[in-house]
Amino acid sequence: MKAIAKTKKDKGVEVIDIEKPKIKQKNDVLIKVKKASICGSDVHIYDWNEWSQARIEPTRVIGHEFAGEVVETGEDVTSIKKGDYVSAETHIACGKCYYCKNHMKHICENTKILGVHVDGAFTKYLIVPEENLVINDNELPPKIASIQEPLGNAVYSTLVEQVTAKSVLVMGCGPIGLMCVNIAKASGASTVIAVDINDFKLEKADELGADYTFNPNKDNVSEEIFEITNGLGVEVGLEMSGSVIAAETLFKSMRKGGRVSLLGIFDKKVPLDFNEDIIFKSLRIYGINGRIMFDTWYQIKGLLKSGNLNLDPIITHELPLTDFEKGIELIKKGEAIKVILDPYK
Amino acid sequence: MKAIAKTKKDKGVEVIDIEKPKIKQKNDVLIKVKKASICGSDVHIYDWNEWSQARIEPTRVIGHEFAGEVVETGEDVTSIKKGDYVSAETHIACGKCYYCKNHMKHICENTKILGVHVDGAFTKYLIVPEENLVINDNELPPKIASIQEPLGNAVYSTLVEQVTAKSVLVMGCGPIGLMCVNIAKASGASTVIAVDINDFKLEKADELGADYTFNPNKDNVSEEIFEITNGLGVEVGLEMSGSVIAAETLFKSMRKGGRVSLLGIFDKKVPLDFNEDIIFKSLRIYGINGRIMFDTWYQIKGLLKSGNLNLDPIITHELPLTDFEKGIELIKKGEAIKVILDPYK
Amino acid sequence: MKAIAKTKKDKGVEVIDIEKPKIKQKNDVLIKVKKASICGSDVHIYDWNEWSQARIEPTRVIGHEFAGEVVETGEDVTSIKKGDYVSAETHIACGKCYYCKNHMKHICENTKILGVHVDGAFTKYLIVPEENLVINDNELPPKIASIQEPLGNAVYSTLVEQVTAKSVLVMGCGPIGLMCVNIAKASGASTVIAVDINDFKLEKADELGADYTFNPNKDNVSEEIFEITNGLGVEVGLEMSGSVIAAETLFKSMRKGGRVSLLGIFDKKVPLDFNEDIIFKSLRIYGINGRIMFDTWYQIKGLLKSGNLNLDPIITHELPLTDFEKGIELIKKGEAIKVILDPYK
Amino acid sequence: MKAIAKTKKDKGVEVIDIEKPKIKQKNDVLIKVKKASICGSDVHIYDWNEWSQARIEPTRVIGHEFAGEVVETGEDVTSIKKGDYVSAETHIACGKCYYCKNHMKHICENTKILGVHVDGAFTKYLIVPEENLVINDNELPPKIASIQEPLGNAVYSTLVEQVTAKSVLVMGCGPIGLMCVNIAKASGASTVIAVDINDFKLEKADELGADYTFNPNKDNVSEEIFEITNGLGVEVGLEMSGSVIAAETLFKSMRKGGRVSLLGIFDKKVPLDFNEDIIFKSLRIYGINGRIMFDTWYQIKGLLKSGNLNLDPIITHELPLTDFEKGIELIKKGEAIKVILDPYK
Repeated sequence: MKAIAKTKKDKGVEVIDIEKPKIKQKNDVLIKVKKASICGSDVHIYDWNEWSQARIEPTRVIGHEFAGEVVETGEDVTSIKKGDYVSAETHIACGKCYYCKNHMKHICENTKILGVHVDGAFTKYLIVPEENLVINDNELPPKIASIQEPLGNAVYSTLVEQVTAKSVLVMGCGPIGLMCVNIAKASGASTVIAVDINDFKLEKADELGADYTFNPNKDNVSEEIFEITNGLGVEVGLEMSGSVIAAETLFKSMRKGGRVSLLGIFDKKVPLDFNEDIIFKSLRIYGINGRIMFDTWYQIKGLLKSGNLNLDPIITHELPLTDFEKGIELIKKGEAIKVILDPYK
Repeated sequence: MKAIAKTKKDKGVEVIDIEKPKIKQKNDVLIKVKKASICGSDVHIYDWNEWSQARIEPTRVIGHEFAGEVVETGEDVTSIKKGDYVSAETHIACGKCYYCKNHMKHICENTKILGVHVDGAFTKYLIVPEENLVINDNELPPKIASIQEPLGNAVYSTLVEQVTAKSVLVMGCGPIGLMCVNIAKASGASTVIAVDINDFKLEKADELGADYTFNPNKDNVSEEIFEITNGLGVEVGLEMSGSVIAAETLFKSMRKGGRVSLLGIFDKKVPLDFNEDIIFKSLRIYGINGRIMFDTWYQIKGLLKSGNLNLDPIITHELPLTDFEKGIELIKKGEAIKVILDPYK
Repeated sequence: MKAIAKTKKDKGVEVIDIEKPKIKQKNDVLIKVKKASICGSDVHIYDWNEWSQARIEPTRVIGHEFAGEVVETGEDVTSIKKGDYVSAETHIACGKCYYCKNHMKHICENTKILGVHVDGAFTKYLIVPEENLVINDNELPPKIASIQEPLGNAVYSTLVEQVTAKSVLVMGCGPIGLMCVNIAKASGASTVIAVDINDFKLEKADELGADYTFNPNKDNVSEEIFEITNGLGVEVGLEMSGSVIAAETLFKSMRKGGRVSLLGIFDKKVPLDFNEDIIFKSLRIYGINGRIMFDTWYQIKGLLKSGNLNLDPIITHELPLTDFEKGIELIKKGEAIKVILDPYK
Repeated sequence: MKAIAKTKKDKGVEVIDIEKPKIKQKNDVLIKVKKASICGSDVHIYDWNEWSQARIEPTRVIGHEFAGEVVETGEDVTSIKKGDYVSAETHIACGKCYYCKNHMKHICENTKILGVHVDGAFTKYLIVPEENLVINDNELPPKIASIQEPLGNAVYSTLVEQVTAKSVLVMGCGPIGLMCVNIAKASGASTVIAVDINDFKLEKADELGADYTFNPNKDNVSEEIFEITNGLGVEVGLEMSGSVIAAETLFKSMRKGGRVSLLGIFDKKVPLDFNEDIIFKSLRIYGINGRIMFDTWYQIKGLLKSGNLNLDPIITHELPLTDFEKGIELIKKGEAIKVILDPYK
C-alpha cells in the first residue's frame, strides 16, 4: 500500500510502497484509515527542522491526525472492537513515570509520537495502542473526526480556565487559532477578537464567529482592543502565533487579572517586561502542551455534541493521499487551513 | 405615585399612594423605574410566609427586580450619573463584616434586601445605593434588563464550575431553572436535560434549548438520564426545585465525580444517602445563595454580549403595575414564568 | 506460610496455612511483607457486614495496609525492582473505563480491592500489580509505611482544598480522623478542633496537635466552636465519624463560605437542612472516596519529607500476625487506634 | 512631632517637625504608631527612583509598614474603635472601578498608597481609612505586627496555589523571600530551597527553615536542585529576586507541570525561552502584586495563629525613628533584613 514516508535524513518525503502492518503487541489495534489531515508539524518534518532531526529515524511513515475503522485487535484489547470508528491521541505515554502517575501523561518523560517515533497515518492501515484510541460518534464526518487531535490543542488552550462570558483575543489564525475562535464562541465568550497578518485567515476567523478581526499590518491592534473593551483589555489571551511581536502585542492587550494561554512555538527567546506585562497586571499564564489525556478528548466529544461548534470552514482542501506535497505547498503559501488526505483516492 | 406595598403583618398587599422618595445618604441614587419583574420571593411576601414575617416591617414597598433610569445622585456618587440606564443587585451589603472583607458580600452578615428591608421597585421611583447599581447596555430591552437579578442566580448556579462540554440536568423549570437551561446551552454544554412536573414549563425549556425534557409524572427520569448518558449519569446537576423527591432523583442521576449546585429552597429536611449519593460518587456540592458581588453581574454582561442567550421565551406576561395580584395568580397557577410590571401603564 | 483468611461466608476469620504465591501476570510483583496494619474495613470483613458479603468470595486472605520488600517481578515490570521497599494503593483500577481515562482511577467502575477481591497482606508474601506500588524512602519505619493507605484518605480529605491558615474541625477521631488532625497542623491550619465521644482518642488528638478537643457527651460542641472562632464557625469541616448526630453538629458549626469533606460511612440516611446548612451558608461539600491515584501518594511522600508530620502516637499496638483477633478486639473496645501486625513474630 | 519625609524632588529624606494629623473624612482613623518598619520601596523613595518620581509630591511623610493603637475615629467608623491594636493594608482602593467590583481591589485603577500618595507611618501619629485597618491579636509583638504588610506579599506569592507537600524554590532572600521560606515550611512544603548571593541572607534562610541554601556564586544551583528533586526539578518556584539571571535559573529549575509566582521587580526585560521554559513544561505562572484585599490579611492572621511561623530572625535591627538613614544604609549593604523603627526612642 502507498505511504508518505521520510526515507532519508534530509528535506522532503517520498511516496513508498509498504506492507500492511501486523498486530504485534497484545494491546495493538489495526486501523483502516478513512481520512487523514496534515499538521503543521508534518510541514516541519518535511522541512527536516531541528525538532524532526532529533526524533525521526527513517524510514518512517509520517502523519498522526486521522479517523479510521478498527479491523483487528490484539488479545488484551477490550475497550475497542472490530468495526469501531476511531481517532487517536498521538502522544503514546509510558504510564509509569512521575508525570503519568500524576495525571500528566501529556508531558510523559518517555512519550513516543505517532508518525514520528512510530509509523503513522499517511497510508491505508496503521497500528495504534488501545489506550490512545477514542471512539467517534458514527454521525461525525471522517474529515472532522480526523482533525480532533489539533482540536484538542485548541480546547485545552481555550478552556484551561472558564471562557464563558469573557473577552478573548486569539493571536494567530492558523488551524488551531481558528479552532480557538470557534470554541470560544461555542462556549459563550462575550467577544472574540482574532488577529493575523493573512487576510484569508481573518476571513475564516470571521466565518468561525470572531466578533472582530485585525491585521497588524493595517490596524493598531492593541489600541483597537482597548477601544472594544472599554479601555480594560481582554480577559483571555490565546497566543497561537509563535511570533515575538505578536506575543508582545498580546501581553500589552491583556486586562489586569487576566489569563494567557501559550501554545505557539517560538524560534527565539521572547523579551518580556515582567513588571508591566505580568506582575503589575496580576496575570496568570499557562503553558499548553498537547492535550490532557484523556480529559481533553472527552471535552472534544462534549463540544461536538453541543451543536455549538462548526468546524467546516477550517477544512479548505481535500486531496488524494499521494498529493501530500501539494498540500504542504498550499499550507506554506497560506492558502490552505486544514488539508484532508484520502488514502483511497 | 402608586406603589405595591405590604401594609400590614398579614397576607396580601395593597396598592397605595406614596411620595416620590428623596436622596438622603450621600451614596443614594434616585431611579425612575422602567420595568419591574415579579420574583418568587414576592409571592412568598404576598403569602406572608415565615421568611417574610421575620424580615418585613410594614408599610414596605416591595419589588426588587427592575430596570430604570437614574434621575438624581447623592453627592458622593461618582460611578453612576444622571441618565444612566441601570439595574440593581438587591443585597445591600455592609462592606465591613468578615464576609464583605473576604469577597463574600453576597453572604454579608448585615445584608439588607431591596423591597424587604428598604422600599423597593414596584412603583415609579426608588432609591438604591450607588454600589448596588449596574449600568446596562442601551440596546438591552428594559424587560430583559429587569430580570437580570434572578439571571444572576442562574449564572452563579450554572457557572460556579465550568459547564462547557458537559452534560447538565436542570431539576425544576421555574424562571431560574429555565434561565439555567439557556445559560448552559449558551456556554456549550453537551446535553441539557430539563425536568419539571408542569408541561408548559417543559415546553419553555424546549424553546430555551433543552435537548431533553422529562416530566416525572410520566417519565422514569433517572432511567432516561442514564440511557442518554451511556449509563454514566450527568456531570452537572442544578437543583432548582426545592422538592425532596426531585432532589433525590437528581442525586441518583449524578455521574461519579460530578458537580451539584443547590439553589432551590426546601420546606423540610432532605434525607440524603451520604454514602451512595455523595461519598462513593466523589461528588462536589455547592450551596448557591444570591450572586457573587459583583463578579456574577459582569458574567451576566458578558453572556448577554455573547449573543448566545435568548431569554425572550421566559417573559410570558407584561402587566400594568397595579395588576400585580393578577401576576401573582398566574405564577401560582403555573401559567406564567416571568411577569413584567409597567408602572406607567 | 500463615495467613489470616476469610474461609467461609460467615463472621470471623481463620489462621490458615497457604503456599507462597507465584508471579502469574507480566505486571505482577511478589512482595515480602514486613509490617501490615488493621483497617476499619478489616473489622467489617471480620463481622461479615453487607459490604463484605457483596464482595468477598472465600477463601480469601485479607489485609491491605502493609509495607514490604520486592522479591520478584513479572517480565513487564520496569518501574519497580527486586529489593525495593514498597507500599501499595489498594484499589486496582481497570485503566480503561471512563473514570480511569479522566484521571479518576479512584472511582474506577471495575475496581478490585486488595484483600477483598484478591488475596491480601495478612501473611508473609503477596502479589500486587506494578502500577499499584509506591516506593518508600528507606528511612521510613515499616510500621509508618504500612499505614500510608489510610493516611492517603486523610490527606485527600484534608487537602482537597487548601487548609493552610484555616480553622479546621475534625469530627470523629478514629485513625483517619487523627491523621487529619496531624496533617492539618502540619499544613499550617490556624486552629484544629477535634471531636469524639472517646476520651482516649481525644488524648491522642491532643498529642497529634489538636488545639482543642471536645467530647459531645460533656461539651456543647457547636457552642464551643463558635466561641473559639469569634462567632463565625470553622472554615473547614472534616466528617470522619459516620454518625448522623455528629454530621449535624458539623454542619451547624460551619462558617458561611466554608468547605466540608465527607469521608465517614453512615449506616442510615442523613436528614439535612439544605437551606440553613448548605445553601444560605454557600458551603462547598466534597465526597471523599479512596485516594487520588496517584497524586495523593505523592502528597503523602511530600508531607512525610516535610518533617511536619508525627504519626507515632497513632500506632498504639504491635502484635504478631496470628494475634489478629486480639487486634480486632482492641479496636472494637476503642482501646487501640492503629494495630500493626508482624508476620514474622 | 518628628517625621521622616521627602521634602524635595530629589534623593534623600529629612527629619521634620509636623503637627499631629486630624480626622477629616468620616471614615478616617487616627492611629498612634508603636513600631514601623523599613520597606524596600522606602529605599527606592530615598533614592528617588523613577517609580517614586512619578508618584510622590513633597512634602510627604513616608513609611507604610507599622503597628499602632487607635486613638480617634471618624463618625462613620464602626468596625474599629479607640484602643484597638491595628496594622494596615497600604493600598487604598477606590471601591468603584471594574477591579474593585470584581474582588481585585489590590489592582484598583485608582489606588493610593500610604506613605506615597498620602502621609505615612514614619512618625508618631497617622490617619488611615477604616477599610484599610486590620485588628491585631493583643499577643502579637508590635515589631512583628509592623511587618505584616510585606508578609502579605509573601503569603500571596507562596499560597496562590497549595504548597503543602511540595518542593519549593525561593529565588532571592530579601525580607519577602525569607518570609516565603518560613511560610512554605509552616505550610508543610516537602523541601524548601533558598538561593541568594549574600551568605548572611542564606544563614537567615537556614534559620527560617530552608532545607537547602545555595549561593550561585559558589554553587551550580540548577544542577543541585535537580539532584535534590530526583532529576525532576521543583514544583513551586517563587521569584523574589528581580534578577534576570536568577529568573532564568528559576525557570530552568522548574518541574514540568509546576507553578511559578513572580513578585520581584526587574530593571529590564527578561528574555524567556517560551518553548522550553513554559510551553513544553506546561507551567503555570502567576504575577503577584500586593495582597488580596483582604483575604490575604485573614491568611496572615491564620498563619500567625497556627504557631507554625517564626519570623523573629527576619528582624535584625531596631532603631530610633530618627536613625532612619542608618537603617537604609544597613539594608543597602545587605547587613540588615528588616529594620524596625521606634518613634518614641
